[in-house]
Amino acid sequence: MIDTVLALLKEKKYAQVKQTVLEMHEVDVAEIFEEISDTETMLRLFRLLPKETAAETFSYMEADVQQRIIEAITDKELRYILDDMYLDDYVDMIEEMPANVVKRVMNNSSRENRSLINQYLKYPERSAGGLMTNEYVYFKRTLTVTQAFDVIRNTGLDKETVYTCYVIDAQRHLEGTVSVLELLLAEPDARIEDLMEENPIYVQTLEDQEEVAKMFSRYDMIAMPVVDNEKRLVGIITIDDAIDVLQEENTEDFERMAGITASGDESYLKTPAWKLAKNRIVWLIILMLSAMVTGALLEHYEAAIATVPLLVSFIPMLMDTGGNCGSQASTTIIRGMALDEIEAKDFLKVWFKEIRVAMICAVVLSAVNFVRIWLQYGDVGVATVVSLTLIATICIAKSLGCVLPMLAKKLRLDPAIVASPMITTITDACSILAFFGIAVRLLSDRL
Amino acid sequence: MIDTVLALLKEKKYAQVKQTVLEMHEVDVAEIFEEISDTETMLRLFRLLPKETAAETFSYMEADVQQRIIEAITDKELRYILDDMYLDDYVDMIEEMPANVVKRVMNNSSRENRSLINQYLKYPERSAGGLMTNEYVYFKRTLTVTQAFDVIRNTGLDKETVYTCYVIDAQRHLEGTVSVLELLLAEPDARIEDLMEENPIYVQTLEDQEEVAKMFSRYDMIAMPVVDNEKRLVGIITIDDAIDVLQEENTEDFERMAGITASGDESYLKTPAWKLAKNRIVWLIILMLSAMVTGALLEHYEAAIATVPLLVSFIPMLMDTGGNCGSQASTTIIRGMALDEIEAKDFLKVWFKEIRVAMICAVVLSAVNFVRIWLQYGDVGVATVVSLTLIATICIAKSLGCVLPMLAKKLRLDPAIVASPMITTITDACSILAFFGIAVRLLSDRL
Repeated sequence: MIDTVLALLKEKKYAQVKQTVLEMHEVDVAEIFEEISDTETMLRLFRLLPKETAAETFSYMEADVQQRIIEAITDKELRYILDDMYLDDYVDMIEEMPANVVKRVMNNSSRENRSLINQYLKYPERSAGGLMTNEYVYFKRTLTVTQAFDVIRNTGLDKETVYTCYVIDAQRHLEGTVSVLELLLAEPDARIEDLMEENPIYVQTLEDQEEVAKMFSRYDMIAMPVVDNEKRLVGIITIDDAIDVLQEENTEDFERMAGITASGDESYLKTPAWKLAKNRIVWLIILMLSAMVTGALLEHYEAAIATVPLLVSFIPMLMDTGGNCGSQASTTIIRGMALDEIEAKDFLKVWFKEIRVAMICAVVLSAVNFVRIWLQYGDVGVATVVSLTLIATICIAKSLGCVLPMLAKKLRLDPAIVASPMITTITDACSILAFFGIAVRLLSDRL
Repeated sequence: MIDTVLALLKEKKYAQVKQTVLEMHEVDVAEIFEEISDTETMLRLFRLLPKETAAETFSYMEADVQQRIIEAITDKELRYILDDMYLDDYVDMIEEMPANVVKRVMNNSSRENRSLINQYLKYPERSAGGLMTNEYVYFKRTLTVTQAFDVIRNTGLDKETVYTCYVIDAQRHLEGTVSVLELLLAEPDARIEDLMEENPIYVQTLEDQEEVAKMFSRYDMIAMPVVDNEKRLVGIITIDDAIDVLQEENTEDFERMAGITASGDESYLKTPAWKLAKNRIVWLIILMLSAMVTGALLEHYEAAIATVPLLVSFIPMLMDTGGNCGSQASTTIIRGMALDEIEAKDFLKVWFKEIRVAMICAVVLSAVNFVRIWLQYGDVGVATVVSLTLIATICIAKSLGCVLPMLAKKLRLDPAIVASPMITTITDACSILAFFGIAVRLLSDRL
């Protein structure tokens, strides 16, 4: 579809472009704009869009495309789009724009929108308040079903957020919720207060966005009311934003676990190389310096190494296996905590389980190793040293892999921070110490 | 809340338990059952639930609790729950139960449900067909709005899935969709065919569940129609299931990237230790054997090691840094592909970007290293060897980190499979080769 439109645009077949675009979803249309580098063509395509879909298509665009369009269109066109945008998309856009564009946008916003935006911009970006929108239907508990339907019709929203209506009192306190389905099934003169759910699930403006997203998924909700600290309704969050938050938090965990500092929501291809490097280099340096500690430990055993250089050839295997065992454990635990499957109170249960897993893995791996070394070198002494070290390393790695993330969580840090790379580094040091410690004792006749 | 109910249950204050449970969400009530080990108490609590919430609470329970309840209740109670459950939850439950429980469930299902379940069980578990449910509203295009509302009322669903209605012809071909909001805003005698969206987004029964979940998030949908290969409507998928799929796929990527074979949807604490070990041991052995290759490479340099044992102390740092650089790149690329931010056609752009990132990281890290070694050992030769190796290692690691996952995708493998552990292993071998290769050349006078 997208390629068809691009081809038609190139051939200047605008009537056909318009026809094709009409049948497409707005998000797909928005993607076409990503592919157009020439501002004139972009503007022409934008002006082909029917008025009623222009604003929606615009909200689906990436910030850089939005900016190019804002800079190209007239004030009148801009006002038209801004009036038609949902408030949450509006606020998101403003947060991404440079100051001069924001100024032009604000100058072309209605007075009402301007004050709403300024109010919404005050909430922290990663809080419930930062996600919410004002597109919802509300009424008093004394209304009848017929009156409620009138309110829904007159609110004039064209979004799925009308399907849950919020019942508030004179001071806007949230008293309950009622769904359009319940209204449809009720008698026309029934009263809202007799139909409404009086214990609705809600969040406060400052609640962390990750917690909000988890509540959506736990309670199978489509929209979540947001209240201030006096339980007055100030907005709602819709499920599409909750899904975005879930994906964003997952990305952040992936990045943390690979030793990357948060990249924000910029896409990879649009992030400049120096910025990617900056996000990665901090942890690389920290981990490099820590790995030097392991190296320094090795210096103590220079004599042993010079006497039995064969020992050195087992270092990579011991280090890698320790690292892998540790990251298996830490990934499992960190993910389990992110999904609320593992809680702090389960600490001993988790540790005990990891120890048992470690023992099983250790026995199998060290057996494979012992046989291999014995067959290849016929050296039972070295085979014993390597196998014993492997058992120690695996037990240490699996323990660290569950203890450190849970400890981080207890200290209110993000558990993903102490994930694989850090555990690998600590395990490395432990396995080198264990290896030469055991070697010096067991092979004392040779060293 | 949960703890309150547990305490009240212990004190046998059943009236208060009932009162508290009435105000709770079904998913929270379901969680109470997880905490009760005694079957009699569990059964007593279950029988306190009002009939209309019993089935919903039941669908939120974990499979093992569901099984204990099925085994404890009477056939009459079982029939009551089964009649009230949604078909997708029903099918999910049956897939988790042992044969004897399935038999009892089927014997107590209505004839209609039995045939539907058998039909739904035929679809692959990870396909659109395996996710769908039959709770939706459909009608012909010739209906008026008033008639459409009658259909909605008479279908008698109590789920948010009524808000999008499906328009089908006599052969059940999907012709369009219409939302309840559009019906509310239209004239009562308007015809459906004049209101409906004629190009609805839909999926086919065999579409992969991950693709389906991505479409939900791309198109901001709440329910997705599923059609067979003749475009006949056979079911819908609801957004709660799409979110579960997203989380499941993310978990799978986390696991793959840590070298764990898929654990399925069992929770950590309920998975026995031997099973966890089994999921982890395959990759541990593969990676251990690969690391032995790196070890074997070291054997070639026994002479160099015996002469300048100091060289050995840089091995951990070189290996760890290579591994970390590789997993940073692979994590970024794999995540970017999972989110559709990076596509196969971007291959060269991505590689070029990683090379630039690698150069920046390499220059900084090798400078830090050079200075440290120079200051600590005053050995410019060794400092040069280590710094050059570091540059080579980082470039190789970053290249592998983007090339291998993209190659895997091209070969229709899951990119997460060639993630960090495998890249670490390959990088290790490369960095050892580079290290001693450079050392032998540059330090030839000493070795």
